[in-house]
Amino acid sequence: MQYYKKRTLVFDNANIAEGYTVAGPKENDGRYKGFFDLALKDDMFGQNTFERAERKMFEHAIEGAIAKANLTAADIDVVIGGDLLNQIVSVAFAARKQHAGFLGLYNACATFVESLIAGSAMLNNGLDYVLCTAGSHFSTAERQYRYPLELGVLRSPVTQWTATGVGATVLTSHKQPVPIRITRATVGRVVDYGVMDVNNMGAAMAPSACDTLVTFFKDTNTVPSDYDVIYTGDLGKLGSDILMDLARQEGYDISAQLHDCGASLYWDEQQTYQGGSGAACSALVFNAVLLSRMRRGEYKRILLAGTGALMSPTTSFQGDSIPAITHLVEVTA
Amino acid sequence: MQYYKKRTLVFDNANIAEGYTVAGPKENDGRYKGFFDLALKDDMFGQNTFERAERKMFEHAIEGAIAKANLTAADIDVVIGGDLLNQIVSVAFAARKQHAGFLGLYNACATFVESLIAGSAMLNNGLDYVLCTAGSHFSTAERQYRYPLELGVLRSPVTQWTATGVGATVLTSHKQPVPIRITRATVGRVVDYGVMDVNNMGAAMAPSACDTLVTFFKDTNTVPSDYDVIYTGDLGKLGSDILMDLARQEGYDISAQLHDCGASLYWDEQQTYQGGSGAACSALVFNAVLLSRMRRGEYKRILLAGTGALMSPTTSFQGDSIPAITHLVEVTA
Repeated sequence: MQYYKKRTLVFDNANIAEGYTVAGPKENDGRYKGFFDLALKDDMFGQNTFERAERKMFEHAIEGAIAKANLTAADIDVVIGGDLLNQIVSVAFAARKQHAGFLGLYNACATFVESLIAGSAMLNNGLDYVLCTAGSHFSTAERQYRYPLELGVLRSPVTQWTATGVGATVLTSHKQPVPIRITRATVGRVVDYGVMDVNNMGAAMAPSACDTLVTFFKDTNTVPSDYDVIYTGDLGKLGSDILMDLARQEGYDISAQLHDCGASLYWDEQQTYQGGSGAACSALVFNAVLLSRMRRGEYKRILLAGTGALMSPTTSFQGDSIPAITHLVEVTA
Repeated sequence: MQYYKKRTLVFDNANIAEGYTVAGPKENDGRYKGFFDLALKDDMFGQNTFERAERKMFEHAIEGAIAKANLTAADIDVVIGGDLLNQIVSVAFAARKQHAGFLGLYNACATFVESLIAGSAMLNNGLDYVLCTAGSHFSTAERQYRYPLELGVLRSPVTQWTATGVGATVLTSHKQPVPIRITRATVGRVVDYGVMDVNNMGAAMAPSACDTLVTFFKDTNTVPSDYDVIYTGDLGKLGSDILMDLARQEGYDISAQLHDCGASLYWDEQQTYQGGSGAACSALVFNAVLLSRMRRGEYKRILLAGTGALMSPTTSFQGDSIPAITHLVEVTA
């Protein structure tokens, strides 16, 4: 492994104004029940297609975050985000309802943390308020990436369950009453260890998570115990175990701090096997759970490492392996 | 129309080090023959699928731009870009070969200018060198967005032809011997006038181009005649006419300055009807043609407005209209 300092950024004025979440019914039946701002009873959300339901979740999350931060739509300079659907149509169509500029991102399930990094960078260019958002929907992702829902395909025990939910965070260059800030970040690079099994994304993503975490620790001269918790995005249980092993080989024991947004989202009896996956995992857990705990003083300093698998059905059909990426932010209260 | 100042950014240190282009055979038979760094004789580029050819074009463009700027891969901090394929797999897979960080973007055919804006913003956060890239391939786009190539579907006279090519630009915070800089930018917002015809994307995108151009002129107190040329991305001929009409209604006559990268890419006898489309248009014309003319002193101050249509086949099948976005950069020599 080689390390370049230049992937790690320092932000002076990336203050978190508010976070807002819309979660699916299964997600609100999980470990974080009651943490979400809006929990859907029905993942169709009153729409006639799953894709339109996902879009409506984005519309609500964006509007919800703006209102919760006591702002209006006109205060937001730029909406930055993405989703898992082809051409990121959920967030792009939702952004029609905003006056703000729109920067569309795609780094698969790492998109939420990517949006926090891009948003923090934009604030350094003079913007006042940016809105960062990402999410996913089980039923749209399943039928786009895997099989028609009606087919009832048996799931492998190493699979994960695409979480339904959207998270939105308002970042601002203005100081906030409760000071929670994005202080540093490491931009992930694309890491491909040749994993071919699209049912085992945790294994494909763990080397990338290790690369970014170790790069961050070296660049900033920090160690895992400097942090209250380290949350990865959606490595799942197996992927988290692999990450712990890989990090130990690099000289970092992260076992006391490591949690995974996806792995922690559901109860075992919800039968998601390795836990949740999807862009929603880090967007939901960060905005609903981690921000609350930081506001209550339970956590002072955390790392959030969004993990993403960058393949498509076409690349898998053509025999390619699964490249992965992990973006990381340090959040300090 | 409402105008918000906050979408327009000013950059102090976004210097252009170099641009590099890989163009398809049809593109190098067009109006800009000889301008491209690498012109392919065969759009398969020695690969066994069109998708792998597109990926290889990105690999070459990224490596070409780095070499042309007298840099090595280790100098580049972050690669920022996207393409038109689902999950932006072309640039994501190409980025595996780099040590740099990777920020994946998607704003359809506006992605190249989006990458210039995001790249300029990153430089303001202390990075030295960022590489901005976007592109497209006729044969991958055609079979993903429209019909199987083998079907030989008749084309409507309002259609455009997805250009094959990739452009890459190295931006740096270090002053350059020939000073060409990105000085200002306007982040586009999502504009949807309800156009439903996916064969007429110029009409769908023209209102968005007008919105961004007029926003930029008002925010910066400039007028069209302050610029040598104003290049839109891929409005095509019909879309350009609509834009000129819309801008005139807003009090701006851009007829003397307006060119369109897509409309100008091919000769009439190449039968692309309204001209080129795709993320390649602005990436090719900016890096191959506009940068050369600025280096030679022919242009001192230009605007490049990347236009993008944000629909997907799924949204069109579900009866949705076509939202569009236009990002703009001001480039000064």
